[in-house]
Amino acid sequence: MSNAPKINPDQLWQDLMALACLGATAQGGCDRLSLTEADAAARNLFRLWCEDAGFTVRVDAMGNMFARLEGADPSLPPVLMGSHLDTQSPGGKFDGPLGVLAALEAARAIGRTGTRTRRAIEIVNWTNEEGARFAPGLMGSGVFAGAVTLEAAHAAQDRAGDSFGAALKRIRYLGEEPVGGREIDSYVELHVEQGPELERTGTTIAAVSHSNYLVYITVECLGANGHTQATHFATQRNALLGSAKALVEIERIATTLESRAAVSQLDVWPNNRVNVPHRTTFSVMMVEPQKEKMLALRGQILAALDSIGTEMGLTFTIRADATREPVIFPEEMVTLIEDVSKDLGHSVMRLSANTGHDALSMGPICPTALIFVPSRDGISHSDYEYTSPDHCAAGAEVLMHAVLRRANRT
Amino acid sequence: MSNAPKINPDQLWQDLMALACLGATAQGGCDRLSLTEADAAARNLFRLWCEDAGFTVRVDAMGNMFARLEGADPSLPPVLMGSHLDTQSPGGKFDGPLGVLAALEAARAIGRTGTRTRRAIEIVNWTNEEGARFAPGLMGSGVFAGAVTLEAAHAAQDRAGDSFGAALKRIRYLGEEPVGGREIDSYVELHVEQGPELERTGTTIAAVSHSNYLVYITVECLGANGHTQATHFATQRNALLGSAKALVEIERIATTLESRAAVSQLDVWPNNRVNVPHRTTFSVMMVEPQKEKMLALRGQILAALDSIGTEMGLTFTIRADATREPVIFPEEMVTLIEDVSKDLGHSVMRLSANTGHDALSMGPICPTALIFVPSRDGISHSDYEYTSPDHCAAGAEVLMHAVLRRANRT
Repeated sequence: MSNAPKINPDQLWQDLMALACLGATAQGGCDRLSLTEADAAARNLFRLWCEDAGFTVRVDAMGNMFARLEGADPSLPPVLMGSHLDTQSPGGKFDGPLGVLAALEAARAIGRTGTRTRRAIEIVNWTNEEGARFAPGLMGSGVFAGAVTLEAAHAAQDRAGDSFGAALKRIRYLGEEPVGGREIDSYVELHVEQGPELERTGTTIAAVSHSNYLVYITVECLGANGHTQATHFATQRNALLGSAKALVEIERIATTLESRAAVSQLDVWPNNRVNVPHRTTFSVMMVEPQKEKMLALRGQILAALDSIGTEMGLTFTIRADATREPVIFPEEMVTLIEDVSKDLGHSVMRLSANTGHDALSMGPICPTALIFVPSRDGISHSDYEYTSPDHCAAGAEVLMHAVLRRANRT
Repeated sequence: MSNAPKINPDQLWQDLMALACLGATAQGGCDRLSLTEADAAARNLFRLWCEDAGFTVRVDAMGNMFARLEGADPSLPPVLMGSHLDTQSPGGKFDGPLGVLAALEAARAIGRTGTRTRRAIEIVNWTNEEGARFAPGLMGSGVFAGAVTLEAAHAAQDRAGDSFGAALKRIRYLGEEPVGGREIDSYVELHVEQGPELERTGTTIAAVSHSNYLVYITVECLGANGHTQATHFATQRNALLGSAKALVEIERIATTLESRAAVSQLDVWPNNRVNVPHRTTFSVMMVEPQKEKMLALRGQILAALDSIGTEMGLTFTIRADATREPVIFPEEMVTLIEDVSKDLGHSVMRLSANTGHDALSMGPICPTALIFVPSRDGISHSDYEYTSPDHCAAGAEVLMHAVLRRANRT
């Protein structure tokens, strides 16, 4: 095994820090929303690094980028590994880039051995995982897996009315390759946990067994406008005040049920000092492992909206209502991550995913594994996101060996 | 008195309805924010009507418009009457335009008699009374009265970053006349009540005796961003949830004190579904007749912000803090409105003002009167604002005769 591939931890860390320069925030994070100039710069640099390592990059009509390490038998479907280079605004240095750059370093390490794997291996950078500029997230992988149409994705608009399709073309990443529609042997993704469990338990690696219910509801609240100063609160049909009561009630319900619900987005019309707000929209997100509890959480929240509406003369209407059903990863893939971790001497545990990942898009179309490494203080979607160089390297090692086993299996 | 001037109620109503076509909303209101194309159109039409009636229009460097009916003694300071043509978004047909168009019809009626008043009379359209696009409101009259500098007003920006000065120039209403700095005999303004008292008591006219304390506080709330799904509400330093709690608490405090406080403006960062909001700003408005109660209201609200901040790990910081002290109109001016109303056979009562008016700018620099006529259901700053033709005409008659007595007095 003197020829066993070895990732270079320093190279991986150096690449992560270099990429973090693109869209860097003053607080040490990244603001690299999908299809912005910063995202374009990150893509260009990633392409250069792939080409420097001898991998040709192909781009599909969603801007998804694939760098292929050819296999001994090119007729076999490839093993994919990757994640995304876009971030939240602000986001950190690790959520997304770690999975792409660990895949790049793994591919370079395999390439350095001078041997071929049985199946080809492809590094992938999925477009718009975050959904922070163009909703919803998991867009590039969603179209690849056939869960979202190319037309719907290209028509998605940001708040300024710019379309995904136009922005993709403008940054020159509207590729010619068709999106998906080809056989994939398996998909392995490395990501930061974005939660506190690995750190709390002192574990290095998580093998993700499944995702939880993710429910997104967009609510419109209608009241009546008027002059803020001329009337008492009590006589106003104030959509903002009603929404504030709803937010407080949603917290109370989630806490009582020991479940998770959050409102992080709220828009107000006309949003000036002297007009009673006659309209708001807000999005409620719920995460819950158990179906019955998810239904209870959802039901109690909707009942609370009805009750506040009746009390205050407001109308709450559900404008969008999406449930992402749990994705259960195959036992063989979960075991693969556990086995590889143990063989490499890393502690490993099973976890479920509370957050969206491109692996959730891929799960339905091929055997998929999702690997987590620790997030300091459980923080992500933040300037202060941090995963240590050792944990990044450990994750990259597990990723590489899991992919090698998939690519070489007979 | 066969030569006594008489306003034409049909003409006044026709002018109100014609002006309401400019920036008309589908719901029957108006969206004519200051210095927009709709405001420019309203100004152009108002100027045309003034010139048709033989009055020359002058424009000052704030875009304030003055149409003068010369007096027998041009050396005496003029009596001003008017209000504003801009509206909220959405606003109605009456808040503002009634005072300007009643003044125009009053001036036409006086002109039709072929006699001259002792002092000149000027109709005025004040720029940006509403402050809905460029904050704060009462801007044109505020600069005229020396309460705001011309430089500060021109530098005010809307949400798109457009400056007041640039917008004023673009609509061609950056006039050459200096702003204010001249002696004014007195100012009389007709406005809709924007409250329910006249309707509730079946009274036609209010002589406004004074304004109440108006307190505006802008609050910034800072928390910490993060991933909404990855953490429980309970562990988030969620600035939006903290602000929602603050809004609910502000309502409770105002209701308990039988006073008025409202939040109508709230902005959230980064305002997307998967990021815990780390920052909000919101504006608290308070209206209260009594100083002690205003101080109690203010004190309890600030204490509530501190308490919520401590409980949730948030920082609430006051970013702007303005108190508009009560303006007390001279007894002679209040009595003038009462006397004229009674002489014309209209029921009249005294009221205080809970809302901002250009008359509050003018009060400190000349004897000022403010006349209210009923608002249906007390509604204003709304598409559904309505004042009947009879009430509009009654208000115009009182305005005209009050101005005549001021202009002709020896």
